[in-house]
Amino acid sequence: MKLQITQNKLSKALSIASRIATPKAGLPILNNILLRTDKSSLTISSTNLEVAIIESIPAEISKPGSITIPAKLLAEFINNLPNKPITLEVIKGNLKITSDQYKSTINGIDSDDFPELPILDEEKVVSFIIPTDEFKEAITQTIVTGSNDTTRPALIGVYFNTFENDLFIAATDGYRLAERKFIENVADDIALIVPISSLQEVLRSLSEEITEIKILFDENQVKFQLNSIEITSKIIDSNFPNYRQLIPKTTDVNIILNTSEFLRVTKLSSLFARESGGSIIIETNSKDNNLIISSVASEVGENNSTISVDVDTDSKITLSSRFLIDALNHVSDSEIKFGFSGKLAPVVVKNSKIDNYTHIIMPLKS
Amino acid sequence: MKLQITQNKLSKALSIASRIATPKAGLPILNNILLRTDKSSLTISSTNLEVAIIESIPAEISKPGSITIPAKLLAEFINNLPNKPITLEVIKGNLKITSDQYKSTINGIDSDDFPELPILDEEKVVSFIIPTDEFKEAITQTIVTGSNDTTRPALIGVYFNTFENDLFIAATDGYRLAERKFIENVADDIALIVPISSLQEVLRSLSEEITEIKILFDENQVKFQLNSIEITSKIIDSNFPNYRQLIPKTTDVNIILNTSEFLRVTKLSSLFARESGGSIIIETNSKDNNLIISSVASEVGENNSTISVDVDTDSKITLSSRFLIDALNHVSDSEIKFGFSGKLAPVVVKNSKIDNYTHIIMPLKS
Repeated sequence: MKLQITQNKLSKALSIASRIATPKAGLPILNNILLRTDKSSLTISSTNLEVAIIESIPAEISKPGSITIPAKLLAEFINNLPNKPITLEVIKGNLKITSDQYKSTINGIDSDDFPELPILDEEKVVSFIIPTDEFKEAITQTIVTGSNDTTRPALIGVYFNTFENDLFIAATDGYRLAERKFIENVADDIALIVPISSLQEVLRSLSEEITEIKILFDENQVKFQLNSIEITSKIIDSNFPNYRQLIPKTTDVNIILNTSEFLRVTKLSSLFARESGGSIIIETNSKDNNLIISSVASEVGENNSTISVDVDTDSKITLSSRFLIDALNHVSDSEIKFGFSGKLAPVVVKNSKIDNYTHIIMPLKS
Repeated sequence: MKLQITQNKLSKALSIASRIATPKAGLPILNNILLRTDKSSLTISSTNLEVAIIESIPAEISKPGSITIPAKLLAEFINNLPNKPITLEVIKGNLKITSDQYKSTINGIDSDDFPELPILDEEKVVSFIIPTDEFKEAITQTIVTGSNDTTRPALIGVYFNTFENDLFIAATDGYRLAERKFIENVADDIALIVPISSLQEVLRSLSEEITEIKILFDENQVKFQLNSIEITSKIIDSNFPNYRQLIPKTTDVNIILNTSEFLRVTKLSSLFARESGGSIIIETNSKDNNLIISSVASEVGENNSTISVDVDTDSKITLSSRFLIDALNHVSDSEIKFGFSGKLAPVVVKNSKIDNYTHIIMPLKS
């Protein structure tokens, strides 16, 4: 293998691919990145056996070939070189890197030992295209309520599922749940769980030039195509809870609140709620037309704040301030609909105008 | 105590003063901040018994008084309030905070229990004024070579000392040393060690409005005056090593190098030097007029880079790449003077033009 390539393109590609390269027990080659020539480009691949990242960069190939190289060392080395042409050459199984007055040799491992990269079953592929900003918002709004408890595999993923011709995504940790409408008018029936960690890799790989994302599913895998970057992930083989029945259709108390004002009082109350694990009390008062947020009496002092609202029911609920802060940080409108029914039913947080997001939180015992 | 004050000024002051408030064994009150009215201002004080911070903010006092309040809770609470007038009132030994629709009470401790704050001996005070940018650069250039080994108290400080009518500052960890000319033409004889941690507090408290700093010394303390902020620190009671004799007056090899180019090759070499604790080899070649930087042969591969220089001596030295990177990150010129003499004498790094900074590094065994 011998080729010439520009520093900034190679560096950018390596910074993405090197992230997932880490050795697994008995598989030191997963610490490496696979470099392979392909007509007029260099293909860079890495995998942790869950996710694989494949990138293609234009290069001047003088001799085709391939090699695997420790990912982080190569990425840091190329990142520190000046923005000038770099020559890469395989000599006796090692990679010689030359640029300007800099010369290095990094020891490689034969590319035959690299695990096979995933390929989607083309006959069974379903695909969508989504604008990057839309994708980013929807995924961020959903993964916030996901779990990291690997003993419940379905909950460490985001559930992509069609319902009445629209594609929704949802995640829950058992205490709260977020659902976002993802793509409208979808012909195929979809019900697949994508690992949150894989979606986070996609989010981290985004850059300004990537204006849309193509998503391809087959039965076992999902592939995200971001211009010249392909991220392929396994799908979680588990059943997602039947979450739609958990979302209350109506609530007794229904109020409209300014998002940032409600966020501010929740944060203030949470400061006093550390001893009680962050639990705060929300109370409506129909006589005075207001909402009172207070922290459970604590050693450090006490706190309560009042917000004027239109409310016709007197009710009271105890909530985790952290969960409520998460919800308020993830709605997109400047005003929200806040609904609850007594002390046991879930709280519902929705945008006041754009009806594409539902965030529910289970109350705490009080 | 009862007063009215603006949120943004109070919040800024608390964020600085609350940093050093942490309880010491048996002294929970050090976790608190002291609030005390003073004619038309509120004085905020905190101390960890090493350093004390005292700030003064304009306020409308309706009833004089004082109280101490948990520092971090108060700082976070005030920081989350809207930018509107805040009323503070002591009621039954607790602080009631009111602003807009927010109401809180934070439990306090009587101010009589707060430790006495340091006062400089006015008859023995020596003082200087220095522009903030100059102060920042000089302190940053010096503390980089300081130690954090508390068993050698002199080395966890910066040595302020006069020499031939100029005031210099210096710090060393025993392996490297940095000296900076601090203020020219100083009449008094000074030889005092100021804790690095206190200087870091001063650096952290700087903001754009503070354009100059007044420094006042007596025999036991140093005070930094930053507009309305006063930071007073104890001085370290120990002898600083007689460091001037350690700085080589001349070196065998003397070359001029581009700072950022030299930094780049040092970083590249350091990537290959992890197994050898970061040691790299620097070699001059008078025949080819160049400097070769290489890493000690390692398992991951090998690296060497060449820089063209004017050099008339062949020599070689092994250095810690981390120490060299620190030195190159702290010079202020775009070119440096790099000098060394054989394998045992210290390396000298200086700015090529502005002769106010000397950074020396002991070589490693090779």
